[in-house]
Amino acid sequence: MKLISLPEVNKFSGDRPYRELLYDSPNMRVLAFNFEPDQELPIHSHPADSEVSLLILEGEGVFTGGDEEIPARAGALQILPVTQPHGLKAKTRLRLLVIITPTL
Amino acid sequence: MKLISLPEVNKFSGDRPYRELLYDSPNMRVLAFNFEPDQELPIHSHPADSEVSLLILEGEGVFTGGDEEIPARAGALQILPVTQPHGLKAKTRLRLLVIITPTL
Repeated sequence: MKLISLPEVNKFSGDRPYRELLYDSPNMRVLAFNFEPDQELPIHSHPADSEVSLLILEGEGVFTGGDEEIPARAGALQILPVTQPHGLKAKTRLRLLVIITPTL
Repeated sequence: MKLISLPEVNKFSGDRPYRELLYDSPNMRVLAFNFEPDQELPIHSHPADSEVSLLILEGEGVFTGGDEEIPARAGALQILPVTQPHGLKAKTRLRLLVIITPTL
């Protein structure tokens, strides 16, 4: 059993989004990404039969990668196959939880 | 692509925890459970090679099922194999996100 306190995953970095691996098993990988304003997770995709879930824990930004940008506010949860282009750009400080199922 | 606004999943029920299926695929199932004070998800387990993630979105309660109760506050994320007994009891109104990977 693993217990994680997400409010304590609160580091940021001026260079690039702060990234922390929280959990990793064949079934799922859980990552935290914390963004300063204007930092972004570039649009990308993977050739695999997995799904990625992007949950905004705090802050405001936009989900990128689709035909148009989608507002990303606290409590927004985007789920999509990893084959579909996905990314995120922060407008404010933003904390993102990423879950990949199964692990790539 | 599926987009869910978790703050809008805000129904409660007096009889038993309000339950809503948010997403379902072979890779993962996502459920919301909203508890009134003292409502609970009974301790249970499943004989399968899957993991269950319990994320407290709002409220206070305790994770049950282990040797001792573990405080469950907003931002607490518990991950465990579904073979291990798990459950939750709410002290206040509590909103829980459950992710099962892969789907049972």
